[in-house]
This record gives sequence, structure tokens and C-alpha cells, in this order.
Amino acid sequence: MPNVPSQNWGLEQIVAELRASREELHRTRHPRGIRELPSREAVTNIVTGLRAALFPTHYGAPDLTDETVDYYVGHTLESTLRLLAEQIRRALRFLPEFADTPDADLKERAFNVAREFGTQLPGIRALLVSDIQAAFTGDPAAQHITEILLCYPGVWAMTHHRLAHALHRLGVPLLARFINEIAHSATGIDIHPGATIGPSFFIDHGTGVVIGETAIIGERVRLYQAVTLGAKSFAADLDGTLVKGNARHPIVEDDVVIYAGATILGRVTIGRGSVIGGNVWLTHSVPPGSSVSQGKIREGERTDEGRQ
Amino acid sequence: MPNVPSQNWGLEQIVAELRASREELHRTRHPRGIRELPSREAVTNIVTGLRAALFPTHYGAPDLTDETVDYYVGHTLESTLRLLAEQIRRALRFLPEFADTPDADLKERAFNVAREFGTQLPGIRALLVSDIQAAFTGDPAAQHITEILLCYPGVWAMTHHRLAHALHRLGVPLLARFINEIAHSATGIDIHPGATIGPSFFIDHGTGVVIGETAIIGERVRLYQAVTLGAKSFAADLDGTLVKGNARHPIVEDDVVIYAGATILGRVTIGRGSVIGGNVWLTHSVPPGSSVSQGKIREGERTDEGRQ
Amino acid sequence: MPNVPSQNWGLEQIVAELRASREELHRTRHPRGIRELPSREAVTNIVTGLRAALFPTHYGAPDLTDETVDYYVGHTLESTLRLLAEQIRRALRFLPEFADTPDADLKERAFNVAREFGTQLPGIRALLVSDIQAAFTGDPAAQHITEILLCYPGVWAMTHHRLAHALHRLGVPLLARFINEIAHSATGIDIHPGATIGPSFFIDHGTGVVIGETAIIGERVRLYQAVTLGAKSFAADLDGTLVKGNARHPIVEDDVVIYAGATILGRVTIGRGSVIGGNVWLTHSVPPGSSVSQGKIREGERTDEGRQ
Amino acid sequence: MPNVPSQNWGLEQIVAELRASREELHRTRHPRGIRELPSREAVTNIVTGLRAALFPTHYGAPDLTDETVDYYVGHTLESTLRLLAEQIRRALRFLPEFADTPDADLKERAFNVAREFGTQLPGIRALLVSDIQAAFTGDPAAQHITEILLCYPGVWAMTHHRLAHALHRLGVPLLARFINEIAHSATGIDIHPGATIGPSFFIDHGTGVVIGETAIIGERVRLYQAVTLGAKSFAADLDGTLVKGNARHPIVEDDVVIYAGATILGRVTIGRGSVIGGNVWLTHSVPPGSSVSQGKIREGERTDEGRQ
Amino acid sequence: MPNVPSQNWGLEQIVAELRASREELHRTRHPRGIRELPSREAVTNIVTGLRAALFPTHYGAPDLTDETVDYYVGHTLESTLRLLAEQIRRALRFLPEFADTPDADLKERAFNVAREFGTQLPGIRALLVSDIQAAFTGDPAAQHITEILLCYPGVWAMTHHRLAHALHRLGVPLLARFINEIAHSATGIDIHPGATIGPSFFIDHGTGVVIGETAIIGERVRLYQAVTLGAKSFAADLDGTLVKGNARHPIVEDDVVIYAGATILGRVTIGRGSVIGGNVWLTHSVPPGSSVSQGKIREGERTDEGRQ
Amino acid sequence: MPNVPSQNWGLEQIVAELRASREELHRTRHPRGIRELPSREAVTNIVTGLRAALFPTHYGAPDLTDETVDYYVGHTLESTLRLLAEQIRRALRFLPEFADTPDADLKERAFNVAREFGTQLPGIRALLVSDIQAAFTGDPAAQHITEILLCYPGVWAMTHHRLAHALHRLGVPLLARFINEIAHSATGIDIHPGATIGPSFFIDHGTGVVIGETAIIGERVRLYQAVTLGAKSFAADLDGTLVKGNARHPIVEDDVVIYAGATILGRVTIGRGSVIGGNVWLTHSVPPGSSVSQGKIREGERTDEGRQ
Repeated sequence: MPNVPSQNWGLEQIVAELRASREELHRTRHPRGIRELPSREAVTNIVTGLRAALFPTHYGAPDLTDETVDYYVGHTLESTLRLLAEQIRRALRFLPEFADTPDADLKERAFNVAREFGTQLPGIRALLVSDIQAAFTGDPAAQHITEILLCYPGVWAMTHHRLAHALHRLGVPLLARFINEIAHSATGIDIHPGATIGPSFFIDHGTGVVIGETAIIGERVRLYQAVTLGAKSFAADLDGTLVKGNARHPIVEDDVVIYAGATILGRVTIGRGSVIGGNVWLTHSVPPGSSVSQGKIREGERTDEGRQ
Repeated sequence: MPNVPSQNWGLEQIVAELRASREELHRTRHPRGIRELPSREAVTNIVTGLRAALFPTHYGAPDLTDETVDYYVGHTLESTLRLLAEQIRRALRFLPEFADTPDADLKERAFNVAREFGTQLPGIRALLVSDIQAAFTGDPAAQHITEILLCYPGVWAMTHHRLAHALHRLGVPLLARFINEIAHSATGIDIHPGATIGPSFFIDHGTGVVIGETAIIGERVRLYQAVTLGAKSFAADLDGTLVKGNARHPIVEDDVVIYAGATILGRVTIGRGSVIGGNVWLTHSVPPGSSVSQGKIREGERTDEGRQ
Repeated sequence: MPNVPSQNWGLEQIVAELRASREELHRTRHPRGIRELPSREAVTNIVTGLRAALFPTHYGAPDLTDETVDYYVGHTLESTLRLLAEQIRRALRFLPEFADTPDADLKERAFNVAREFGTQLPGIRALLVSDIQAAFTGDPAAQHITEILLCYPGVWAMTHHRLAHALHRLGVPLLARFINEIAHSATGIDIHPGATIGPSFFIDHGTGVVIGETAIIGERVRLYQAVTLGAKSFAADLDGTLVKGNARHPIVEDDVVIYAGATILGRVTIGRGSVIGGNVWLTHSVPPGSSVSQGKIREGERTDEGRQ
Repeated sequence: MPNVPSQNWGLEQIVAELRASREELHRTRHPRGIRELPSREAVTNIVTGLRAALFPTHYGAPDLTDETVDYYVGHTLESTLRLLAEQIRRALRFLPEFADTPDADLKERAFNVAREFGTQLPGIRALLVSDIQAAFTGDPAAQHITEILLCYPGVWAMTHHRLAHALHRLGVPLLARFINEIAHSATGIDIHPGATIGPSFFIDHGTGVVIGETAIIGERVRLYQAVTLGAKSFAADLDGTLVKGNARHPIVEDDVVIYAGATILGRVTIGRGSVIGGNVWLTHSVPPGSSVSQGKIREGERTDEGRQ
Repeated sequence: MPNVPSQNWGLEQIVAELRASREELHRTRHPRGIRELPSREAVTNIVTGLRAALFPTHYGAPDLTDETVDYYVGHTLESTLRLLAEQIRRALRFLPEFADTPDADLKERAFNVAREFGTQLPGIRALLVSDIQAAFTGDPAAQHITEILLCYPGVWAMTHHRLAHALHRLGVPLLARFINEIAHSATGIDIHPGATIGPSFFIDHGTGVVIGETAIIGERVRLYQAVTLGAKSFAADLDGTLVKGNARHPIVEDDVVIYAGATILGRVTIGRGSVIGGNVWLTHSVPPGSSVSQGKIREGERTDEGRQ
Repeated sequence: MPNVPSQNWGLEQIVAELRASREELHRTRHPRGIRELPSREAVTNIVTGLRAALFPTHYGAPDLTDETVDYYVGHTLESTLRLLAEQIRRALRFLPEFADTPDADLKERAFNVAREFGTQLPGIRALLVSDIQAAFTGDPAAQHITEILLCYPGVWAMTHHRLAHALHRLGVPLLARFINEIAHSATGIDIHPGATIGPSFFIDHGTGVVIGETAIIGERVRLYQAVTLGAKSFAADLDGTLVKGNARHPIVEDDVVIYAGATILGRVTIGRGSVIGGNVWLTHSVPPGSSVSQGKIREGERTDEGRQ
């Protein structure tokens, strides 16, 4: 006979148990029956669209000319901001203060946030240009701007971060985290969207870098792979609940270089112009101009250990 | 003339040399002429389908309602398990014990494995829910379950691991490894599918985490980025052949926390409730309640170094 | 009323400011108005095509037989080399020496480079086969060649590297970097295309590995995750400009094993057969047969710390 | 020089003229600023989804079994009806009576129409099964039901028509026309969604068939290619405006056969059991049992001219 | 409140009714539980692949050269014939004589049919080249072969027909019909795969052409749009069952031209070199050299009415 | 044994015979080794892009507003005209006068043709708007402009024709034919791009309409399905070669209506305001105001036979 009797998966049972699991055991439903989540595909398209609008000749359509580039930028912006407004609307609903906002009001608020975000794009572009130039001047291997825009994961990650940080400040933390996580997956660089990072920032190689939520980084700072700017410990309430949002990550002042694998924990300050050597473990502040290397602090003496 | 004479790639020579390389130099053919390999695209679709069946409101179709969710789950399960059975069939052929099994028998066995796997899904879901809750209670930055499901690489990796581990136990190691490697590529977290991990497990940031094949991890354990649970050395036979499968990775008991960059090697036991500090290098067991930090062991005293 | 008056994004202003940013602030245009950049999609397709031509039964079309495999390899090579020639043409334009080359000449040069590259493929395949066998013999967990080809990120990264290195040597550094960066994103392994790596090279796990541009690695070398072969410091001219291209990364001789997290910096030599322990920080040469572990050098004694 | 100065398309002028054309010459804007039109892609997906739900083993997913088919049908229905409701909402806005309906009310109405449409699907399926059986019994060439479902354009067109007719009756004429036109493009058969067609209807070959809006067709009627059931003339008001919606197309009673190329115009009645020969031009009614052939009426005598 | 209570589609009822319709009313299941139907997408890909293998420079990959074209043709053939064998296997199952054939035997038979079909491809190509040349010499508007290959629906339809006819003769009528219907949908030309058509056949415009199953067409015949070569009447058994397969369509001898809209019915013979005028209705044979025009037969006199 | 010995397709033989067929029997190569043919996909995208630029609110992006529509139109035009220039370049190479033109010159000429074509778009839009309005005023069933733009095959075909006609006049006949044929396949309406058609032209239903190359159609003409405006006979040279390009199709003056199935052949003139009845066969001119119906000419009397 050509056909075996069709075998049975026992689907009815599995479906029922999964339903029970959803209903009884651990409910992971959204608050108040929200069904529209931010979409990873949409967020990816938004970042792609914004990147194209910011750097049309590198990430936009091929063969753009002076005659055509503004049409491209304008159209790309419009379709991207519209996508963004929709994702903002979905993300806002997760904030307690908007849980009961009427749909129309939330939609309008999302539009306004997206619109405000749009006006910040030229400023974000200026910051990113400073990051690109930092890579160019800081890395002797860099041949030209194009190589940096196409091949540097640090620049890729910073593009996501600067966009995510703007959304974070505009009150859309969920979307900002989503953007950060997409970059983390692509580059191995995990920057919390809340971190404040000055211009001309450069991360080389980057895999394993972690920068915490309340970190503050000055201008012209350079980081290598596997650097952690983390928290040392968590403050807890009397009942053991962790206190949220307090400043718990390092402040890194201008012109600091931190080599590969260094770990800096807590609300310490790395003084302007310091050099932190590779694999250093640091949980206290150091004054400006310090040079810290494994096992000792040699202030005033500068090395470049850990550089690739 | 509009067209230059077409240039020649010398293809015939290259094709012949590649054929010679395949045939003479180092044959990388499959055993016994097997031609159907597990497909990365299929395996990716399987994980996507299972994730959607387990958490339909987060990873499934938009706008599912109480009326429709079971149709969705049932149909998704069916098409995914069918895909899975086919990939299992291909993977089983690589096991020596199935090298000569008739096709029809192998197909039936693959069906039975997939069917058994299906019945384990509700249990896997319960474990994953415990992991999600561990992230929620363990990370003060987590706002809600949705953020964790969308943005936490550790949860992403554990979804792959718990599915892969079930397949590993059901005797399909190749497919399990494949699933693990897809998660590794996306998250930088490399968990061998053989590792045994208890409920409420949480990995934060995660890039660079490596967990070995025979590691055993208890309940409510928390790990940070770049933690290694590895082997210290390999046992070898008299003739130098490495002994396979013996227990060579750490046992981590319940309620242990291991901070970023810590390396624990060998079949050592980290006692219940211990805290292992950041960057610690540990090759011996520590009793319950230990607190280990760089360069010293301070038992009984607990810190939170290395937390982000 | 069904439709609210359409709101305004203020696009004209944003577009104008972005144009001003492009024109005045920081120009990131390509040199001399070049508009055709190497395309990430094309480069990804090229690597996919070459991988399929090199290992048709694993990465090529399903069900290839002895009758059909050469047709497949020949056709895949042709279409891939054609794609490659076009991307080489685009990349060459960024080199100063080709900035003013007429289009037709550049096209011909690109064809010749691609053609020469094609002839090297059988040799590249032989090297990759040696890498695969190194993984098979070096890792007791590896069950068969297929598992290694499908699931080992180190093999994935080396496939990119060996192709990228050949292009680097043929004078197309931008394309080589692009290929390297695609592998870096997928595996967390960052190997500069300039690095010289002998046969039978194996990287296990791999996340966080960094290998610098002038590193030289012998035969049968094995590396684990998070190993850095970096530069210790940069030579600078009198005016502070960094000197480019000088030898600044380690030489690793044959049969060396370097365990997870070890950092080796500068133009030092790791003598043949040495074993470098996990997390070791090393900035000087060690003689053949050395065994270096954290905090001490125990020559002659060999351990396997850091192995997974 | 490698790059010619970029040439100019004169876009600004064209864009301005097109804008002027839109604004001044002939405005083809939607009424009242409506911006959401029914989408061809969505309508195509809706018909595909409905066809799959009606005949899951032929048009649905492969390998459906008794265990799984209802999950498939249920899920497909849900996602398709949701798509349909959205397209109905867009189409309703074009009706004058809904031009000012608030969005929420229109959305609810669209849902209700889609829901009502859903309940009619089993009845539509019964009609389509009768059509398929008519093809099977009426065409000696037909081998089995599968051939008819896969290869008969008449069945394809009738699937569209029966769905479109239901929507037409439910008050969504624009969507109904859209569905009809998609079938017209694929088959060359143009049936107005308003036409009333009884069960067991069969069109063979079909190219060029036109059936007008007010045509009424009985049971077991058979048509061949290029048959027109059209209007003879239009009634006009005193001011020359054509009167809409009056009965102006033929009534074809049960068991009539109309051979290829016949043209029947006006509100005439083709009596039960009549046979209309190929290429006949008919503008008056014929009694039951008539046999009409080119140039003559031979009542009572039956031939089969024009059959293929 | 942000979310309305979710409305209900009444799915359970619809699904149940559709199930009842499938089970009770009119079962349109495949014979003996066959679940694998020929796939439209696969059949389309097969025709595309065969067309590319036959005319690689027009329908194949761009930029094929003398060096590469055979690799392309060989690889395309292999993957296409493999697809074809699978579709043949599915189609054969529908034939009564193969209803109970074991799967492995059917698979082998399908392979053999596909293999035999492959050997006929050079002959089919020769016929198609004669058709293309007939278009070129017969149509003064044709500028070059390329125009004919790209823009002539008659050539498109004949490509399908000649492939379908070969499959029909090899005993796979369902697949042949499927291929025919795909061409019918694209061109409006409906040629039954059973029809026998000599070389150098040309159909201009083509919409509405119908050629029946037992038609026999000689060499160098030319047809215009809306020509029907049909059956006049069906022979029936005593019990009214139509007799299948008997010769009931016209024989058209060499060098005949039939202008637009002509209808020729029954097993009549159109003698060599005859010209049938536009819209002519013909149900009897005409001798060689006839010239038939509307309403009269003017033998010996030749016109070209109906030509475009 | 799990695997049968792999069977053989006999590919080498088929490939060799196909090569022989290409080389010896009937060479269908392009003139002078041209390898780049116009691409159907590209031409389809061009028409889609032009349609979107002409009617952005119907065929363009959703949700365009007054602020954004010009960005969309400008960008769409640019990318479409660039695509068009490339296809024009390929098509021009087929013209004898450009067979030997240097590539760069041909590229420039193609650019200039595309640029000139761009400037004609506003005029083409005005003609299409007149066609849409003719459908709206001429068809009592038409509810609004949107229905016409979405559902009328005649408008679809005329969009292609008016674009193709402009290209035909600009000297790119191959591309024009290609565009025409794409519309023919979708609608069954076959209009030669050379035909000259005045404003406010309307074709209803349309399947089977054929309009020849030298036809001239005035303003406000209306046609129904299966109307042919063809050639009566071909002028031939003494040696039998058909004379090309002479006027051989009808002239249809303003305000003429031609009902379904009418065939008008030769360089005859249908006088202004005439009505040609359904299925009429006409090979001579008729004066203005004629009313022709089947079998008779009733001048001055006007009917509407054949209308749907």
C-alpha cells in the first residue's frame, strides 16, 4: 500500500497543556491585554532607514546625486518616522502612566515623540561624524572613512546607541532597549541606552564591551574589547528590594583610554587623560593623568598595553 | 566594437583541482554517502516555530485572541514538529547505530522522537517561565515581562538551550548542537546542549559565556558576561586518545551568583549560595556560602562585585 | 469626522539641516565622488558562493551526485567570481593608486585579481580541510566532520579569514576587511585579514578572540575563547603620527596551545610547543616548550587549564 | 578620469509639473482625503487564504491530516478574516453613506460584515463543490477532482466569483470588483460580482467570457470560451444620464448550454434546457428546449457545435 | 479604556461546518488518501528551469560565456529534472494503474520518466527554434530573435506546449495539463497537451486561441487570435456516457493560415496550403489550396483577411 | 542499505546535444555577442515605479501627505528613470544603427532618452486622467475614480500603452513592445506600442482586444472586448518579402463606439461619431455618424448592441 496510516502527534493534549501553562502556571501576558508588541522587524527597518537618511551615500540608495539626494532623504525620513511613531505608540502602552490612555491620545503622543526625535537627527549625525573621525584618527589601520562606516562594529554600535539614547531621553525606554539589543547581537557590544557618551567616542574590536545605564563618558574616550563599565554592588531597601536608577556606574572623563579586558566597577571617576591598562580590575577613582596597569598604579607613566 | 572578447576564468582547471581535492587530499564526505544534511534554515524555522507555540502572544501572530490562540498554537506545532521530524531523521543518520537503518525505519524513529519531544514542550515552557521570572526579580532594570522576552539575550539563549537539551537527551546530539550554535552566534552565549541547568536561571549581558557539556547547574543561579564553566584538563588513555564524556565541568549548586569574567574549571563544586567575584580564576571546590573574590577567598562575606 | 488633519513632520527643516551637516560640518563623502561602494549583501553572497564551491556537499545544493557536482561547482564559481570581480572593482577605487585609473582599466584589473583569486581556491580548500581535521582530532566532543562544518564557529571564521587573507595579499584590503567583519559579527572572532595563519589551526568557542594584523601563527596552533594576540604599544613618529604596518603582534610557533582569556601583546615569540594558560597576561617571549600559567611560568610542565 | 560629472534628470521641474497636474488639471484624489485604499496584495492573500480554508487538502498546507486539518482551517480563517475586515473597512469608506462615519464605528461595521461573511463560507463551499462536480461530469477529459481543482480556469474564476458575490451582497462592491478583476486577469473570464449564478455551473476554457452585473443563471448551466451575456442598450434619462442598476442582462434558465463565442444581449430569457450554438448572436428570448445555431433557430433539435 | 473587549468570529462553528462539508456533503479528497499534490510553484519553476536550459543566453543567467554556459546548463538541468521527477511521482499516483504501486517503485518510475524526458530536450529545442524562425519570417514587425523570445506570447505558449506534450506522451497527463494551464493563464492561449503540432508553428497575438486534445497540425501553420480548433459534438454510449479519447478535433495540414476568430469544429481536414479567413465558421473539410472567407468559399483565391 | 546507488541523468549527453543545437542547428544568439538583454523584472519594476510617480496616492506608498508626496515622487522618479536608462541602453544595442556604438556613447544616449522621456510624464499623466474620466463618465457601473484605477483592465492597459508609445516614439521599440506584452499578459488587451490613440479612450472588459501598429484613434473613442483593429492584407515586394511599416490599420475618428467582437481590417476610416455593432466584420470605410450592425449598415440610426 502506498500510504502508511497517518500517525498522530497528540496535538490536542499538548495544546491543552500549553493553554493551561499560559493560564494557570505563570502568566506572561502583557499588562491589561495589550496585544501589539514592538516588532523586531520594524525596529530593524527603522534603524536601517535612519542610518540611510543620516548617511545616504553610504547606507542609502546607490548612485544618489546632488539632484536626487534630498528627495531620497526626505522620503526615507518620512516613511521611517511613520514606522517609528507606530512602534513608539506600542512601546508607550507598557509604561504605567499610559496604561489607560485612550488610543487616539496615545497615537498623538507617539507622533509628537517621533516628530521631536526627527528634529534631533542632525545633532545625532554630528555626534556620529565625530565618532567616525575618532576612529579614523585613533586607528592607524583605518584607511578611509568608507572603511570605517562599512567595517567597524564600534561605529555600528554607536549608531544604534545614539539613536537609542535619544529615544530613552524622550521617554521610550522599551524601544531604546530593543535597538540596543539588536546592536548587541550584531557586534557583541552592549551599551545601555541610558548611558551618556560624549562626542568622538571610539570602541575598537568591541566584543564583550558592557557599558551600564548610569555611566557617563566624556569626549574623545577610547575603549577596546571586553571592557566593562559596571556596577559594584546594588543598594537595597530594608526589605531587600533593589533600589532602581541610582548612579552606580563609572564616570569616565575626557581623553581617557581603557584597554582590552579592563573592568571598572561602581560610581568611580576615571580622571581626564588617564590610561587604564588591559585586564585591570578597578573599583576606586583615579585622578586625572593616571596610568593604571595590572597589579599596580603607576601614575604619570603612560603605556599602551592592550592595544591591537 | 561594443564588446570586448569575453575573458576566461580558467574554470575547467579550478573545477578539476577542487574535484581532486575532494577525492584525494582530504575527503570531507559524509559517512556512507549520506547526502541530506540538517539545514540551518530549517533549524532556524523550527526554533522560531517552537518559540511561537510556547509564547504565542509574544512571538506568534499578532492579534491572537482567546478564540483563536489554540488554532494558532495547534497549527504551528504541527507544521513545526513535521519540520523537526525531518531534520531529526537527517541527523540520526550520522549516528553509528543508525548508519544502516532502512529509510522507513529511520523515518518512523524520527517521528517518534519528534512526537516525544512535543509532549515535553509544556514542561519546557514552565522552565522558561521560571527563567523569565528570574530575570525579572533579579534585574532591577527590568520593567516588565515583555521587555525580558524581547530584549534579553540570556532568555533567548536559554530558550535555545532548553529545546536543545531536550533533543540532546532524546538522542539527537547533532541537531542539539546546531540549535546551540545558532544561539551562540546571536548572543555570544555558548552553552553546550549537554549541560544540565535547573529552573530560574539567569544570564545577564552574556557575551562570552561558555558552559561545558557536563556542567550541572542548580536552581536560581545567576551568571554575568564572560563567565566560563570549563574543563581543567582532559583525561587521556594510555595511547593518548582523549576519554570522552566523563564529568569534567563544574557543579554549581542552588542560589549561586557568578560575576563577570570569572573562570571556573574542572569537576569542582561551588557550594549552595556562594558568590564568585568578577574575573576570579577558580579550579577547586568551595563550600556552601563561600564568597570568592580576586586573589583571595573570603568565605561567609558576600559582595556584589562585577554586577552591572 | 473620519480623518484628522494630517500632521506635519517638519521634514523640510530636517532635510535642510542634514544637507548642511553633509556639506559643511563633517563631510564623509567618498574620495573624488566615488558612488559605488562594496555591498554587504554582495560580499555575503560571495562568501556563501565560495563556501558552496569549496564544500559542495555541505554548503552547496542538496542531492549533488558524482554526475552533477562539477556542473554545480563550475556554475557557482563562475557566478561568484563575476560578483567578486565587481566588488573588487569598487574596492580598488578607494586605493590612492587607482583613484584616477580609467574605468575600463580598473575593470580589467579587477577581473584579473578575481581570476588569480580563483586559481588559489584549491589551495585554500586544502588549508581549510586541515583546520577541520584539527578540530576533529583536537576536540573529543566532535563526532564527525559534518558536525564541525555545520556547528563550529571557529571553522566558520577561518573560512572567512582564509578567503579574506588571499584578497588582502592580492591588494584588496577593503574587501578583505569587509569579509572579516561579517565573520566577526557572526562568531565574535575578530581576525585581521593581514594575519598569517598556518595550517591545522583551531579556535574553540571563539567569542572575543582578537588576532592582530601582523600576527604570525604556525602550524597546529589551538586557541580558546577570548584570547588576544594584540599590540603592546604603537611606534610613533616625532610628530606623534603612528607608524603604520610595522610588525607589532605576536609570533606563535607551531603546536602552541593558548587557553581562554589569555592576552599576548607585542612582537613577542611564543616558542614551539608552548602552552599558555587561561587568563595569562604575557608581554614577553617564551622559549619553546614553555608552560605559562597565571602568575608564574612553569617551563617544561604542561597543563591544560582553560580547556572546555 | 574615472567619473563623469553626474548628469541631471531635471527632476525638480517634473515633480512640480506632476504636482500641478494633481492639483489643477484633473484631481483623482479619493473623496474627503481618504488615504487607505484596498491593497491588491492583501486582497490576493485573502482569496488565497479563503481558498485554503475551503479546500485545505488541495490549496492548504501540505500533509494535513485528520488530526491537524481543523487547526489549520481555524488559524487560516482567523488570519484571513482579520485581513478581510481591514480591507472591508477601507472599501466601505468609499461608499457615500459611510463617508462621515467615525473610524471606530466603521471598524466595527467592517468586523461585522467580515464575521457574517465567515458564516457563509460553508454554503459557498457547497456551491463550489457543485461546480467542481459539474466540470467532472460535463467534461469527458476530466480525470479526477484534483485535476479540476488544479487546472480548470473556470473553477478558479468561480471561486473568486462566489466569494465576490457574497461580499457584493453584503454591501462591499469595491472589494467584490477587486476580487473579480484579479480572477479576470488570471483567467480571461470576466464575471461581474453582481451576477447571480446557480449551482453546478461550468465554464470550459473560458478566455473572453463576459457575464454582466444583472445576469441571472440557473442550475447546471454550461458555458464555453468567449461567451458574452451582455446588455443590449442602456436606458437613459431625459438628460442623457444612464440609468443604473436596472435589469439589462440575460436570464439563463436551468440546464442551458452556450457554445463558444455566442453573444446574448439584453434582458432576454434563454429557456430551460436550451442549447445555444457557437458564435450565435442572440438578442431575443427563446423558449425552453430551443436549439439555436448560427443563422437559424432549430428548436427541439439539439447539437453540440462549438464544444471542445 | 485602551482596549475594546475582543470580538468573536464564531470560528468554532465555521470550522465544524466546513469539516462536515468536507466529510458528508461532497468529498473532494484525493483518491486513497493521497496527500501530495503537484505544486504550482514547483511546476512553474520547472518550466522556468527548462526554458533556461534550452535558451540559456535569453532565459538563463546573465553574462554566460562559452566557458561557462555548459556548467550553467548542466547544473540547471540537474536541479530541474530532480524537481520534475518529484512532481511526476506525485502526478503518477493519480493514475489508476499506479494507485497501489509501492512508493519506492513509483519513485523509480518517476525518475525514469524524467530521465527519458531529459533526453528529448534537444529535440524539443529544435522544434522551438523552428517556431521562433516561423515567427521571424512570418511577421514583418519582428525585428530580431530576441524580440520574439522576449515579447511573443505565441512562443511562450508553444514552449509550454512542447514540454507538456512530451510529458503527455510519456504518460503524465496531469502534469502536462498543469503546464498548459500556466501558459493559458499567462497568454490566453489554451492548447491541450495532447494536440500534435508540427514544426514552424506560429500563433500571433493569441488571446482566445483554443486547440483541442486530438487536433493534428502540420508544418508551417499560422494562427491568429481567437481561433478555435474544437470538437463539433461528442459521441455518446447508449447510456449517455461520453466516449473518451476518440479523434474529434480538426486536422490542419501543412502551410495553412487561419485568421483571427475562425472556428473550425470536428474531425475535418483543412487541406495543405489553405487560407481560412477571419471569423469563419467551418464544420466540414476543405481541399488543399482552399481559401475560405466569411459567408463563402473561394477556392484558389488567396487573401489575407484578419491579419494584424 | 539506506541509500540506493545514485542514478544517472545522462547529463553529459544532453548538455552536449544542447550545445550542438545552439551552435549548429539554429543559432538564436544575439547579434554580435550582446549578452545583456532587457530584463522582464526590471521592466515590470519600471512600469510600477512610473505608475506610482504618476498616481502616488493610488499606486504609491500608503499615507502620503501634502508634506511628503513630492519627496516620494522625486525619489521614485529618480530610481525609476535610472533603471529605465539601463534598460534603454540594453534595448538600443539591438538596433542596427547602434550595433557598433561604443559603450559610453550608448550609455549617454540612453540617459538622454530616459531624461527626455521623464519630461513627457506630466503630459502622459494628463492623457491617462482623460482616460480615467472617460471610463467614469462612460460606464454607469463605475462608482468612483478609485474603483477605476484599481479594477479596470482597460486603464491598466492604457497606462502601459501611453508609456510604451512614448518610448516607441523616442526610438526604443524593443522596450516598448516588452511593456505592451506585460500588459497583454495581465489584461488580454494587445495594443501595439506604435498605435496612436487620442485622449479619453476607454476599453471595457477588454479581453481579446487587438490594436495594430499603424492604427490611429481619435478622441473619446470607446471599445469593448474582443475588438480587432487589424490589417486586411500585407503588401509584398516582387520577391514576396512583406513591406514593413506602411499604414495598414484602421483610422478611427473621434467619438466612435465599437462593440464587442467587432473586427475592422485595413486602412479604412470609421467616421466621427459612428457606432459599430457587436461582431461586425468591416473591411471598408464608413462615413461619420454611421451605425453598422451585423449584416447591414444602417447609417444615421444608432443602437448600443454589444454593450455590457
